[in-house]
Amino acid sequence: MSVLIKKWEELAAVKEELAQRDWFFATSGNLSIKVTNDPLTFLVTASGKDKRKRTSEDFLLVDAFGNPAEQTHLKPSAETLLHVEVYTKTNAGCCLHVHTIDNNVISELYGEQGEVTFTGQEIIKALGLWEEDAVVRLPIIKNDAHIPTLAKQFAKYVNEDAGAVLIRNHGITVWGKDAFEAKKFLEAYEFLFSYHVKLLMLTRQSAFVSN
Amino acid sequence: MSVLIKKWEELAAVKEELAQRDWFFATSGNLSIKVTNDPLTFLVTASGKDKRKRTSEDFLLVDAFGNPAEQTHLKPSAETLLHVEVYTKTNAGCCLHVHTIDNNVISELYGEQGEVTFTGQEIIKALGLWEEDAVVRLPIIKNDAHIPTLAKQFAKYVNEDAGAVLIRNHGITVWGKDAFEAKKFLEAYEFLFSYHVKLLMLTRQSAFVSN
Amino acid sequence: MSVLIKKWEELAAVKEELAQRDWFFATSGNLSIKVTNDPLTFLVTASGKDKRKRTSEDFLLVDAFGNPAEQTHLKPSAETLLHVEVYTKTNAGCCLHVHTIDNNVISELYGEQGEVTFTGQEIIKALGLWEEDAVVRLPIIKNDAHIPTLAKQFAKYVNEDAGAVLIRNHGITVWGKDAFEAKKFLEAYEFLFSYHVKLLMLTRQSAFVSN
Amino acid sequence: MSVLIKKWEELAAVKEELAQRDWFFATSGNLSIKVTNDPLTFLVTASGKDKRKRTSEDFLLVDAFGNPAEQTHLKPSAETLLHVEVYTKTNAGCCLHVHTIDNNVISELYGEQGEVTFTGQEIIKALGLWEEDAVVRLPIIKNDAHIPTLAKQFAKYVNEDAGAVLIRNHGITVWGKDAFEAKKFLEAYEFLFSYHVKLLMLTRQSAFVSN
Repeated sequence: MSVLIKKWEELAAVKEELAQRDWFFATSGNLSIKVTNDPLTFLVTASGKDKRKRTSEDFLLVDAFGNPAEQTHLKPSAETLLHVEVYTKTNAGCCLHVHTIDNNVISELYGEQGEVTFTGQEIIKALGLWEEDAVVRLPIIKNDAHIPTLAKQFAKYVNEDAGAVLIRNHGITVWGKDAFEAKKFLEAYEFLFSYHVKLLMLTRQSAFVSN
Repeated sequence: MSVLIKKWEELAAVKEELAQRDWFFATSGNLSIKVTNDPLTFLVTASGKDKRKRTSEDFLLVDAFGNPAEQTHLKPSAETLLHVEVYTKTNAGCCLHVHTIDNNVISELYGEQGEVTFTGQEIIKALGLWEEDAVVRLPIIKNDAHIPTLAKQFAKYVNEDAGAVLIRNHGITVWGKDAFEAKKFLEAYEFLFSYHVKLLMLTRQSAFVSN
Repeated sequence: MSVLIKKWEELAAVKEELAQRDWFFATSGNLSIKVTNDPLTFLVTASGKDKRKRTSEDFLLVDAFGNPAEQTHLKPSAETLLHVEVYTKTNAGCCLHVHTIDNNVISELYGEQGEVTFTGQEIIKALGLWEEDAVVRLPIIKNDAHIPTLAKQFAKYVNEDAGAVLIRNHGITVWGKDAFEAKKFLEAYEFLFSYHVKLLMLTRQSAFVSN
Repeated sequence: MSVLIKKWEELAAVKEELAQRDWFFATSGNLSIKVTNDPLTFLVTASGKDKRKRTSEDFLLVDAFGNPAEQTHLKPSAETLLHVEVYTKTNAGCCLHVHTIDNNVISELYGEQGEVTFTGQEIIKALGLWEEDAVVRLPIIKNDAHIPTLAKQFAKYVNEDAGAVLIRNHGITVWGKDAFEAKKFLEAYEFLFSYHVKLLMLTRQSAFVSN
């Protein structure tokens, strides 16, 4: 079953890189990678693990409903249902969700308007938009403690094989055709967030002062 | 005496992770882990060591009064009395104290009001609060150079098996049932501090300008 | 062909150092090093690679037009034409282009005036300016999605064997006589950017508020 | 001559730790450690090296005038004269000079008043001041491109076996009885700088706006 091993290694490598940036504070974040299409199975991070460590229990295989596809004592990440939406509605092969200070700050600053847009930044090309005046439009949804409700809100924005959604005061979820692409998109968004937060600190208008 | 070895390794692993984040500037910080219940003994960091290094003299075993429980030339951390309060008043198994820029900044900004509260952040779930509108209330106590006095103030807030106290312009002390939980709580608090500091930079009100 | 190996190693070492600082978000950035003068050939980063990894396909050899100088399935970085300008117009031996949050922020703050100047900073000596009142004048050019147009704008400022140009909301391109010098210059500029951004946060004038 | 080897190793270890924090941008910074008292000799960083690397040419032995005490092609750091002042006027055993963003920012913000003071911070105890209301008074001197002039200004504040001086828009020089103490002091100051910069961003008064 070498495809499972290969996908496991791919996801473990991404996890390790993101862990080096310290993007899994307090066991937050969850990652997945598709293994088979028919029936749909994917590897997803086990719940409550310290993601800075690499162990043989970091991931487990789940089915199209997010339930374990094998005998295991491991529990899939609490937010596995969001990954289910990605794999059932698109052809994406990998989905990454992380909490960072800057994605949380951006999600709060623009939470009320339901989206944040970026334009005029070279890094936007990494998202596959090559026109000079391309606008990146990133939806921001309300965080809901009830995961099925959150997944339903999230699903509204899952229409293409690559995409991203920001969950207010929670984190970003990014998906793409494979681990390489999903990670590239994630890095592009985080660069945009950090840039924007810093620029706002220097140029911000009164709009935020009343927040 | 394998339990001692096991606990030593656990605490050494936590120390190494926190050191990677550079949370022990100028030999600051102190860590402990419970070894036995009856009589109470725990390992605590030796005083004045460079915590970025891993040596066989990083910790020493102390008793319920914070005195060495074995023949040693090592001195327990100056603030061992605070750890004593945690282990004598609760069932906690690990206690971590670190100085970070952001926990110091938060402690100063909210020092006069004696506490800081957080709400509406996903990361709060890592503290075991799962309701959407859960409020985290973190007490801030005055820093006192006299450790027994500081320990007494601190003890007022040590009532549960897991908790945290911020000492003004000093650092945070967090405890939990084991090293994994204490570290998770610590990371959750530091995430909240960093988020809050950054958001305040963009939205702060005049309240702080007069500080 | 040991000179090729030597140059490959030099460039790989620089790439590794910059990757440790996380200066290649979302596969951004491109690096080159001259191998031969007559005919001109240089190694340049292959397009679309994850620059945090070290592989035998990280670079490829190109000619004076930026075309592959050998049979290869690799594509030279999209911005290879800018490197061509450096090697055809000067005696530089190495050219580095990176996107960082702070160089993007500076490029936006001073983009309209077409340059940013620094003076009175010790680190300026690393740029080869030893007088106390030396002024560093760094041109900022408009980012153009059409690389030949961008290269033409860029070429206007490529007149000496060492230099740098900031591309608005894109990144900095630095060149010098060898990898050591180019990296030293890059670090000096990034120090100046980070210092300046932080100082502006504390002392900024209304000029930027209207940005 | 094992004392030389021992001191070399001590200094190399400090260099490596500071390099991990990226405190040697653009080959900046210089470090030294005393080897013998009579005659005075000390190891000092060779000029123009990349301090992130560890080589057998990182340091050279110099005498009481800062001249090489051995046959060598290496040049002592340009600022060796400041280290000479430390070893001839005090019993210090180690002296560290680094450029950081935050020490440069603080040096500029308080440069006109010639000193910066800190009080009410726990980390001050690391500087050997244990009273609750202890005040740390750090002189800030003008940066002078002429090193003998700079050394003369610097020498005015070199009166005790441990101490520190901030050079405006240049960096901090810290000395102590050995490498461990000097590094501890350096970390304490950098913590104070970073804390103060961040707190000022949230609470700054108009004083700086006119800077």
